Amino acid sequence: MEEIDHIQASPDHAIVWRGGRLYLLDQRALPERAGFLAFETASAVADAIADMVVRGAPAIGITAAYGAVLGARARVAEAGDDWLDLWEEDLELLADARPTAVNLGWALARMRRFGQGLAPQRAEAELLAEAERIHREDIAANRRIGQLGAALIEGPANVITHCNAGALATGGYGTALGVVRSAFAAGKLERVFADETRPWLQGARLTAWELLQDQIPVTLLADAAAASRMAWGDIAWVVVGADRIAANGDVANKIGTYGLALAARHHGVRFMVAAPTSTLDLELASGAQIPIECRDGAELLGCGGRTLAAPGAGAWNPVFDVTPAELVDAIVTEKGVVLSPDTKKLADLMRA
Amino acid sequence: MEEIDHIQASPDHAIVWRGGRLYLLDQRALPERAGFLAFETASAVADAIADMVVRGAPAIGITAAYGAVLGARARVAEAGDDWLDLWEEDLELLADARPTAVNLGWALARMRRFGQGLAPQRAEAELLAEAERIHREDIAANRRIGQLGAALIEGPANVITHCNAGALATGGYGTALGVVRSAFAAGKLERVFADETRPWLQGARLTAWELLQDQIPVTLLADAAAASRMAWGDIAWVVVGADRIAANGDVANKIGTYGLALAARHHGVRFMVAAPTSTLDLELASGAQIPIECRDGAELLGCGGRTLAAPGAGAWNPVFDVTPAELVDAIVTEKGVVLSPDTKKLADLMRA
Repeated sequence: MEEIDHIQASPDHAIVWRGGRLYLLDQRALPERAGFLAFETASAVADAIADMVVRGAPAIGITAAYGAVLGARARVAEAGDDWLDLWEEDLELLADARPTAVNLGWALARMRRFGQGLAPQRAEAELLAEAERIHREDIAANRRIGQLGAALIEGPANVITHCNAGALATGGYGTALGVVRSAFAAGKLERVFADETRPWLQGARLTAWELLQDQIPVTLLADAAAASRMAWGDIAWVVVGADRIAANGDVANKIGTYGLALAARHHGVRFMVAAPTSTLDLELASGAQIPIECRDGAELLGCGGRTLAAPGAGAWNPVFDVTPAELVDAIVTEKGVVLSPDTKKLADLMRA
Repeated sequence: MEEIDHIQASPDHAIVWRGGRLYLLDQRALPERAGFLAFETASAVADAIADMVVRGAPAIGITAAYGAVLGARARVAEAGDDWLDLWEEDLELLADARPTAVNLGWALARMRRFGQGLAPQRAEAELLAEAERIHREDIAANRRIGQLGAALIEGPANVITHCNAGALATGGYGTALGVVRSAFAAGKLERVFADETRPWLQGARLTAWELLQDQIPVTLLADAAAASRMAWGDIAWVVVGADRIAANGDVANKIGTYGLALAARHHGVRFMVAAPTSTLDLELASGAQIPIECRDGAELLGCGGRTLAAPGAGAWNPVFDVTPAELVDAIVTEKGVVLSPDTKKLADLMRA
């Protein structure tokens, strides 16, 4: 992979299609280095998703959609009229890159449906237009989520967020951080307390970077300090994103979200999940059925490129957890807000 | 400070008095490097405590006691018969090195009382004998705590621990890890899940190192993954140490302990605090009065010697929190076990 410096990087400009190539801001190197990597094949895009060059449920859905465009171009060159069967292999490879975020499968299913019956000479251009629609719709959804979520917050408020559900995790603007941006713009938000979010430190590296660019006051917390801050008494809301929401409103999100929700309920702090409807998976009755990715324990044995743990120690490294719907006060989507979510309310939202 | 390699380091051999000097195993460098630093003055010992060369409530009490011996020697040389008044400055300097662990003040109060009326020519030797008694008594207390705590555990059990309340945090054997060692020796303990414990990673660096030396199975967790592991269903107890226990049984311990206790109660996991009675502070009615140390936010902005957080981000870095007594199932001391602690039960324990 080639590293590219000539594209201007910002949280809202991290997934870029240009000149027939996909450019991804390498989130693993942020904030130290804001450089893009260029991609020309579906399999390289699948690797980039697995290796967390890009992360965040909506962002990996969008990235996979562009990856499907690259795949289609190669399959058309390879097989002409018979490109669709081979393309299916690309779609499956991309879908398997990470298991928990349903947006990945959602975006690829949409690309698959759209690709059926496309003439090979039109496939790349048409599929690119569809990927760009997915991308644009995500940004629009996030702006709407931001408005709806901010409307729930009474200012002046401090909020806690976990991991990064910002522009970098989406097509732009962000889900949880979209709510934060909207609430800040409305003068309701005083300060964001951002969990650092081990092991990848998305909070310290990405969320703080995004918020500082918007001049939104941000204070980092050790993940384990959030409950203490709630006991302190100055937190109104926890606002997080989601990687998959089951039909009953159970929410899979970054490891640590569940403990945060338990602490929030104990302290009377309200708990908001901000996510586009592409994150809803009505085919799963409850969170117990959501596949939870367990990554290599080695990610937890060190930090900053150095192994720090005692040699020989192993680690359990699930990178998501499930927060039961009864701990969630509001799910905020672009289609509307669901308070105290349950199966019926979410089904009604999706039918509306 | 001089670095010393000729003393054999082990978790149970980390605070060493030899040839009129105090040697401390530098816990900041563990497990990468197991080297001792040598100390000859009380103020250097106070700095070592503040800088976390040694940490853990009982260990810093013992270290301060030896520091008081070094102080006495210098004050006698300086002022002869009038050494006591000057020595008081050393005791205050040592007491101020860290605020939360009451064992520090407890050990220094004991040294102060013992020093009164000592002839200057006898002061160093007599005070050294007292410091060594404090050290030996702590080890004996931990062995008793280990037995009493292990007796509460029904095997085969998995436990979660937080930070390091092991041999390194004490005079030897450990409090929470003393319970773990005793339970393991009794065949009741299958595995320890050790929270890595940001920002200093005492779990990953120290607890894992200690347990691996004893061949006790240990798996590291991100701090934020502990609630998820409890939901998994295979954890019987959380076992932690304490830095100060108020008269009503509220427990100050490493940041994150409180969230762990909330999650434990939610999941029916029992919660044990293992600490010598020197950790009890009956002068404070409740945990609200315990001074909680807030360290430099910079400790949280990086890891492994590298800054990783976004430039300009600040951090809130309280290194202890308070777990209310109602979330504690058992306080285990060398004088006995207090179940569902409250003010009366703890007062009765201390009178017994």
